[in-house]
Amino acid sequence: MVQDRFRPSKRSDVAPFIAMDVLAEAAGLEAAGRSIIHMEVGQPSAPAPKTALAAAEAALKHGKLGYTEALGIKPLREALATHYRKTYGVDVPSGRIMATTGSSAGFNLAFLAAFDPGDRIVLTAPGYPAYRNIIKALGLVPVEVEVGAETRWSLTPDHLDAARKDGPVRGVLVASPANPTGTMMTAEALSDLIAYCDEAGIWFISDEIYHGLDYAGEQKTALETSQNAIIINSFSKYYCMTGWRIGWMVLPEQLVRPTERIAQSLYISPPELSQIAAASALDAVQELEAVKAGYAANRELLVKGLPEIGFDKLLPVDGAFYIYADISRFSSDSLDFAKRMLHEAGVAATPGVDFDPVHGKEFMRFSFAGAHDDMKSALQRLKDWI
Amino acid sequence: MVQDRFRPSKRSDVAPFIAMDVLAEAAGLEAAGRSIIHMEVGQPSAPAPKTALAAAEAALKHGKLGYTEALGIKPLREALATHYRKTYGVDVPSGRIMATTGSSAGFNLAFLAAFDPGDRIVLTAPGYPAYRNIIKALGLVPVEVEVGAETRWSLTPDHLDAARKDGPVRGVLVASPANPTGTMMTAEALSDLIAYCDEAGIWFISDEIYHGLDYAGEQKTALETSQNAIIINSFSKYYCMTGWRIGWMVLPEQLVRPTERIAQSLYISPPELSQIAAASALDAVQELEAVKAGYAANRELLVKGLPEIGFDKLLPVDGAFYIYADISRFSSDSLDFAKRMLHEAGVAATPGVDFDPVHGKEFMRFSFAGAHDDMKSALQRLKDWI
Repeated sequence: MVQDRFRPSKRSDVAPFIAMDVLAEAAGLEAAGRSIIHMEVGQPSAPAPKTALAAAEAALKHGKLGYTEALGIKPLREALATHYRKTYGVDVPSGRIMATTGSSAGFNLAFLAAFDPGDRIVLTAPGYPAYRNIIKALGLVPVEVEVGAETRWSLTPDHLDAARKDGPVRGVLVASPANPTGTMMTAEALSDLIAYCDEAGIWFISDEIYHGLDYAGEQKTALETSQNAIIINSFSKYYCMTGWRIGWMVLPEQLVRPTERIAQSLYISPPELSQIAAASALDAVQELEAVKAGYAANRELLVKGLPEIGFDKLLPVDGAFYIYADISRFSSDSLDFAKRMLHEAGVAATPGVDFDPVHGKEFMRFSFAGAHDDMKSALQRLKDWI
Repeated sequence: MVQDRFRPSKRSDVAPFIAMDVLAEAAGLEAAGRSIIHMEVGQPSAPAPKTALAAAEAALKHGKLGYTEALGIKPLREALATHYRKTYGVDVPSGRIMATTGSSAGFNLAFLAAFDPGDRIVLTAPGYPAYRNIIKALGLVPVEVEVGAETRWSLTPDHLDAARKDGPVRGVLVASPANPTGTMMTAEALSDLIAYCDEAGIWFISDEIYHGLDYAGEQKTALETSQNAIIINSFSKYYCMTGWRIGWMVLPEQLVRPTERIAQSLYISPPELSQIAAASALDAVQELEAVKAGYAANRELLVKGLPEIGFDKLLPVDGAFYIYADISRFSSDSLDFAKRMLHEAGVAATPGVDFDPVHGKEFMRFSFAGAHDDMKSALQRLKDWI
């Protein structure tokens, strides 16, 4: 009876990250001697830029790393303000920029600072699974809206009109380029959606973690359209610094102090060494553009090669390093398909059910952040297998 | 009207960390040329151990740092299992040990994995302010129990009996050595309290972040008494690695997978470089014992010196690096007292109201993690000022 009470909370019953489970299974096969090509995790194969590594090494020699201000060290916040001027031509004071322990902390802090329990937040399906998991864990309500080809896989004001019929919507979370689809909203679609939210008093959270990785349209930060937008970004993707757990937010003025107070208790501060390295990573444009050129070559190879071997229904690959492929002609059970592909073809990729419990059964996500030769081999292996 | 809706959430209205505000004010005075002695933040003045720095440097040369398993890298988890065998003679499988992004992440994960909204959790007052802030932000209810000299500043089964009269208690959170008091529970008091919780089906969360820093009694991990206890610890204090944001938990078997699932979404993984450095920090016993000897000398100096200059009511300084001093003969407004002490004497310390909104008005917390000469100067400055 008493032992029964030592059980996990109800809210801990969130779905696991299937991508991570695939990674673990692939690692097991590799340990047993199998050759596996990794297309399952959204992680650059390149190391952190040289400028970042050098800055970290210098800081290590100094030896003492401590708590920083909860908002992050000034040099990083100021370097990010410069980044917005240079990249987007947007003036944002460094006082509205906050360093975070990865974009993961950014989401958690944004949800806590802007929403109270029971608030409804609109997300797209397919979408990054951590969004809905964090939202649920914090007592908020994810409202998942299925998007498809008819709106170019983007959320629109019409979707929001529909969602608001079932109850008030307090927030909208959008990523462009998106995960898992790799699609981007047009500048117009993005500004229309933000204008709608501004008008309706709905917080607009813009996940810009894949900015810098655009191959088709021009990228726009939500900051260009609204002072109320909450921007979340990270050094993990374009800057190749996943394992450093360092990201940032740009906050509306009125959220800075509340977010700082929550962060003091919930994180104290982001890792200092990562903050120092990140500030220098912003200078590594040349090195990072070379990495991006590698993704672009991979993208070209796969967008041509995958249809030739039967994966002929791909979403537009505008940005990020993902291809979201309709596999319905092969299977209506993407989890089973992923397992067979891993074991039989030696190619690891993530089943769509990770991102969309309903239609994801008929999709697979391929990450092309790996080496070009690996991508070539993957195509050959898939061809032989299919 | 619409602009009114762009306001922070109710739950973001948590108290700031006054210690951090004192730190910021002290930094301002220093920037203006004043000499300030820092006794406000619980941060070792020593750098991370040499073994940790060397491991980090070697990993940086390798260059590629990525996401790790959400539970942390195997070598760290295994080194921690060895640590429990060596330090406490306790066998705990590495599968129940999880690396976390500082103890901050440990608390957040423990609260999310074990409690649902509305659950009541007993804390001591005085106590670490982040506990109640995180608890409130997650929709849980902190039940703060005033402890005093009559129970040697410890929580007892009687306190819990009383708290349960007002409603069911789902969790108890205790630190020994404690912050801000530096007091430790006796082995018997600790095991009595844990046995009570086990019997009543109440989760016992043991904050063991100040373990290793004991000067009086023998330290015991709650693991020795219960398999249901949730242990939270960190490399920040004994191991001098605050800025690395790396800690760990020991979880009851049934909480491992739920906590892992939440961590996958909320943190992905702790910083890899910090995990690598931490695994090596466990080998640095000799270096760290020398640091501890420095704290012990500081403690001796202050426990003798503070009463001589008028701070004659100190709590027992059993462990950690804090002295909690009753200042009621000087002031009944510790915030004002702290400000005057900073500006007039050039000594920064934290007002008790950070830890206890009620009785904290008559207490100050002095951290003696600084250099010995600084402690001497602080005594002289306080003597001249008082």
